[in-house]
Amino acid sequence: MIVSILGGTGEQGPGMALRWARAGIEVIIGSRQQTRAEAIAAELNQELGQPRLKGMANPEAAAAAEVVALTVPFSAHRSTLESVREQLQGKVLIDVCVPLDPENPRKMLMPPAGSATEEAQELLGDGVKVVAAFQNVSAHELRALEHGIDCDVLVCGNDRAARQTVMDLVEQMGLHPVDAGLAFNARVIESLTALLIGLNIRHKVQGSGVRITGLPA
Amino acid sequence: MIVSILGGTGEQGPGMALRWARAGIEVIIGSRQQTRAEAIAAELNQELGQPRLKGMANPEAAAAAEVVALTVPFSAHRSTLESVREQLQGKVLIDVCVPLDPENPRKMLMPPAGSATEEAQELLGDGVKVVAAFQNVSAHELRALEHGIDCDVLVCGNDRAARQTVMDLVEQMGLHPVDAGLAFNARVIESLTALLIGLNIRHKVQGSGVRITGLPA
Repeated sequence: MIVSILGGTGEQGPGMALRWARAGIEVIIGSRQQTRAEAIAAELNQELGQPRLKGMANPEAAAAAEVVALTVPFSAHRSTLESVREQLQGKVLIDVCVPLDPENPRKMLMPPAGSATEEAQELLGDGVKVVAAFQNVSAHELRALEHGIDCDVLVCGNDRAARQTVMDLVEQMGLHPVDAGLAFNARVIESLTALLIGLNIRHKVQGSGVRITGLPA
Repeated sequence: MIVSILGGTGEQGPGMALRWARAGIEVIIGSRQQTRAEAIAAELNQELGQPRLKGMANPEAAAAAEVVALTVPFSAHRSTLESVREQLQGKVLIDVCVPLDPENPRKMLMPPAGSATEEAQELLGDGVKVVAAFQNVSAHELRALEHGIDCDVLVCGNDRAARQTVMDLVEQMGLHPVDAGLAFNARVIESLTALLIGLNIRHKVQGSGVRITGLPA
């Protein structure tokens, strides 16, 4: 399996990349600038002790992968998707974006489509299976490779097989996935991130998360 | 402490009433019909084995209490609040309502104020301290008195002292409160209920809930 992480040089990308690479997955870091992607991939390979990651410009990274994760800030959501629309056709896109208000990350913007995930699905068309995941996992916790993460990963999207592909990738990262159904649920899952950021600020922590209780094991 | 539960004859009210009464709190069940409130209070007293609950019409219940909880369906949210506006002045209102779509309780309506809680605060004015709580706790779990509930209670509202009053009441019910800050967070907390209802349906359970991880103990 080859997974690319577009915007993988940002906050969320490196932790995801290292955890997947450690599980034997081939990971490509994507960035607007190829040289930046290559530099971060080299750093991460050094940390990993093995040359498992590559860096590429976003379109090449999208073209080379079977599954593509998108971890850019919401301000770059639409433009990044437009730049890789062709390369994503026939693939699964994991949308990690959260439409936070840049003025106050404890609050949400409301995309006309309802959520970033639904916006991505509209923009990319039915040829791409968009799945929301990883929004609620703290970048700080993801990056702390030496310990586990006490946070479930809510996974939603309109294609059941694509959800399963992503849930398998969540498990390979050592995290617990929860099947949260159709894409409209991304409205809640994305907005949970704003609540968790507010809890981090209020309670002076960096890695609050969420566990869903009462489900069958 | 005297707590009234308006709409207390519905799904959420009886479990809350019994758990508070068991902790020694005086509880008044409110309903549009006084006779219905009295009948439910009598049933619950029998279950409790002690005559700790009373039933009253909503306005009398609101007038008699120090803290008032509102557990009506969202379709009755505005009309109930208008009927007790005067009686609530100077008090804490715990808004438990969730603006679920009556056509599909896995989806939310979007109240113009942003959330039921913010709508209540607008409608009642600054003389009433509105606090959101208990939206994510399954009625089924609340009613099962013989066991604990694996679900945090997210508490938000614009008045810090009122939030503390409600967090104390959450603890007296044997549940764990999380201070979730200002009232705008009710948008997320209320919408989480729709997600949990979807998870209940998808995973064939009755009591999914949520725990916040990574906070100081």
